[in-house]
Amino acid sequence: MAEKPLILVTNDDGINANGILHLSNIAMKFGDVYIIAPDKPQSGMGHAITINSTLRLQKSQYHKGALLEYNCSGTPVDCVKMAVNKLLPRKPDLVLSGINHGSNSSINVIYSGTMSAAIEGSLEGTSAIGFSLCDYSPHADFSGTTHYIDKIISSVLADKLPDGVCLNVNFPKLTFKEIKGLKVCRQAKSNWVEEFDERHDPHGNPYYWLTGKFINFEPEAEDTDEWALQNGYASIVPTLHDLTAHNYINHLKNIL
Amino acid sequence: MAEKPLILVTNDDGINANGILHLSNIAMKFGDVYIIAPDKPQSGMGHAITINSTLRLQKSQYHKGALLEYNCSGTPVDCVKMAVNKLLPRKPDLVLSGINHGSNSSINVIYSGTMSAAIEGSLEGTSAIGFSLCDYSPHADFSGTTHYIDKIISSVLADKLPDGVCLNVNFPKLTFKEIKGLKVCRQAKSNWVEEFDERHDPHGNPYYWLTGKFINFEPEAEDTDEWALQNGYASIVPTLHDLTAHNYINHLKNIL
Repeated sequence: MAEKPLILVTNDDGINANGILHLSNIAMKFGDVYIIAPDKPQSGMGHAITINSTLRLQKSQYHKGALLEYNCSGTPVDCVKMAVNKLLPRKPDLVLSGINHGSNSSINVIYSGTMSAAIEGSLEGTSAIGFSLCDYSPHADFSGTTHYIDKIISSVLADKLPDGVCLNVNFPKLTFKEIKGLKVCRQAKSNWVEEFDERHDPHGNPYYWLTGKFINFEPEAEDTDEWALQNGYASIVPTLHDLTAHNYINHLKNIL
Repeated sequence: MAEKPLILVTNDDGINANGILHLSNIAMKFGDVYIIAPDKPQSGMGHAITINSTLRLQKSQYHKGALLEYNCSGTPVDCVKMAVNKLLPRKPDLVLSGINHGSNSSINVIYSGTMSAAIEGSLEGTSAIGFSLCDYSPHADFSGTTHYIDKIISSVLADKLPDGVCLNVNFPKLTFKEIKGLKVCRQAKSNWVEEFDERHDPHGNPYYWLTGKFINFEPEAEDTDEWALQNGYASIVPTLHDLTAHNYINHLKNIL
């Protein structure tokens, strides 16, 4: 590649989070870094886009060394769309999202703004990777992830991901020495059993907070991301945006 | 089944939309209908959930014949979670979402609140179907869809969908006589090229509206939902929430 790779960095915890700071600093070793990220936390936004209201963009300079930096009032997917279609000088070579403060393994991938930004990157025809650390603290220690992120970025820049595939990388809450390695996995079958915490406002009217308990339906399955994380590995799951259940097409033709 | 099927109906256009009225009236022929739907339009919300703010629920009676009806301040996925975990007397036998005012074919599935509600239904272990009509008008004519929705609901109640699969059904903007039939398809490869419409507020500051142009990358592929809809068929795509690119796992193991 004659010119340096153009790397777009975004996240869902907001442009000020420590996770995106760690990730963009790593990205700067590999290319020209452009940061377009939400101006506030956007966790759990999934693949939401802003179509019924307006978007704002603001130039900022939180990240020393970034070639261009904007924060956007929209969702993580809005940020990628804004970047690719309006702000970047050319199509990016790589989209990086994260590092998320908290897990995006197994079914969490579907609710995750971090991973939806990566999936949107792959929709734009660009290699894309979402990174998450299984630690929700704003002051989480990301240092154990650096070695692996270096390795994954090198590998993906050398061997572009195939059309329609991005990567979902999750790190256990461990130091570099404690992490046993990187394991390629599939998404574990899992779900959340929700408990709605009912409270009453000062006027006596009820309102609810969504809380829940995570259930792994296959804790013994060693080829899953949950197993890897529970057993001290970082997990990496190749992730699609073609949601078609190809295996079920013929059966469906027969029953309809 | 000794008791009547329990059917949850939701949508993303809001509880007052004509599409959910049409769908819930059909559903009442098949079972006991519970409607829990957003209190306002939630198009483009994808699989977003409300975790950083609170949810409100309000009992309503827009739909004559529903056993219970609530509108919820949250997203379509919030509505399904609220219904299944809090409001319904037992696990539903079927989750129906729609009928959406507008297409949810091909890549639109990933941005769609309608389809995310159906996917959430399948995550809860329930057969689930999202219906959409390729007509964005609030006064769209849904009468051409009735025959096919009857047929699909009958079929799915008789033959439960497999674990992890829901259905994405789209209807062309045609009368019943004009619709050529129902076609089982895969999701077409497609994308949106976005154009951000830049305007200025009364204070002179810029803001943006997301608009875009839909691109079908494979207009000749007769096994896709886009082809079906363009050629006068209703499309039905079996849809997954396992996003793993299973075919790419071995290659990834080799390069990392």
